[in-house]
Amino acid sequence: MANADFLLYVDAQFISPYALSAFVALHEKGIAFDMQTVNLAAAEHRAPSFTAVSPIQRVPTLVQQGFSLAESSAIAEYLEDLFPDDPIYPRDLRDRAQARQIQAWLRSDLMALRAERPTEVVFLQPIETPLSDQAKAAAEKLFAIADTLLPHDSLALFGEWCIADTDLALMLNRLVFNGDPVPERLADYARHQWQRPSVQTWVNRQC
Amino acid sequence: MANADFLLYVDAQFISPYALSAFVALHEKGIAFDMQTVNLAAAEHRAPSFTAVSPIQRVPTLVQQGFSLAESSAIAEYLEDLFPDDPIYPRDLRDRAQARQIQAWLRSDLMALRAERPTEVVFLQPIETPLSDQAKAAAEKLFAIADTLLPHDSLALFGEWCIADTDLALMLNRLVFNGDPVPERLADYARHQWQRPSVQTWVNRQC
Repeated sequence: MANADFLLYVDAQFISPYALSAFVALHEKGIAFDMQTVNLAAAEHRAPSFTAVSPIQRVPTLVQQGFSLAESSAIAEYLEDLFPDDPIYPRDLRDRAQARQIQAWLRSDLMALRAERPTEVVFLQPIETPLSDQAKAAAEKLFAIADTLLPHDSLALFGEWCIADTDLALMLNRLVFNGDPVPERLADYARHQWQRPSVQTWVNRQC
Repeated sequence: MANADFLLYVDAQFISPYALSAFVALHEKGIAFDMQTVNLAAAEHRAPSFTAVSPIQRVPTLVQQGFSLAESSAIAEYLEDLFPDDPIYPRDLRDRAQARQIQAWLRSDLMALRAERPTEVVFLQPIETPLSDQAKAAAEKLFAIADTLLPHDSLALFGEWCIADTDLALMLNRLVFNGDPVPERLADYARHQWQRPSVQTWVNRQC
């Protein structure tokens, strides 16, 4: 059934921000790949059929001819190592380091914001629950950091698009798409990044 | 005061697993660096004097001639890019990808275990509180994944030491050093990795 060399496991709801990130990385590289969904609500990621493929038990997981790799940032780096053309990370060493910093930070911080504005609000529908003080503080931290890292008069972190732009835009869009207040410059950036064809391909294929 | 080209900000208690990881990366590369502590309990990481240096507001932060970088995995990758000799990541692309997978996973999962066995138990003293069911489940997941990824008859993930060994050993040692049950093979691995000179340099310099 699989025709391509690469198979990407994603969540069945198509709302995982990390599955999106890996999907975008593959698309931007122009790599042909098959896709298979894992129903997280039914705990399929903990079923032996999946853990045999992905010991980490997470989506996204990328499989290439028997080699299996989870964690979206590791997947992006691996694809960059394999196919350095059409880069998805900045070439400049310091910019590349900062892109990695942003990816690592977005995956390990802002917990209250991520919990109260889950990606359902981006991909499915907004919710009305107001943000707690903790989530508001996380949002303010997000704004302060994004404002520092995003150059003025720019719609990309490092001149040209890189994979960290997609990750940062997703985080901001948890608020933008929900109608929560976001500084205009950052909202413009997040909306602009969302129009990228590889992102829209993901958005439009969701059920 | 600073004589070296690199300055590493670490937590004042010397118990951050990520500060340890960046410290080890610098040591393994043989890079001279100065160190400055940030008192997290006194919220010094949110003070303007630190956020001006580190927008991400986290330790570790590495500063090199005006360039500032947070997130330990991004720091390790940057040092590897700058100084490819004395590698701290595997050279084989698939092994390197798996090392990154492990780093990303350890920084974004096993929350209950990390909360109930904080690194105080590794660096300061054990605690007696029993693990909750959730933390026990996280420990079981850790054991299953480590057992799959660590080759049999090996005390390193990928033949030779890499930075992911230090990160994985720290996570296992949250249990080992606390006297919680850990499969013998994994406990041996974690104890062995802890004896690495760069790790012991950190352990011995703590207050």
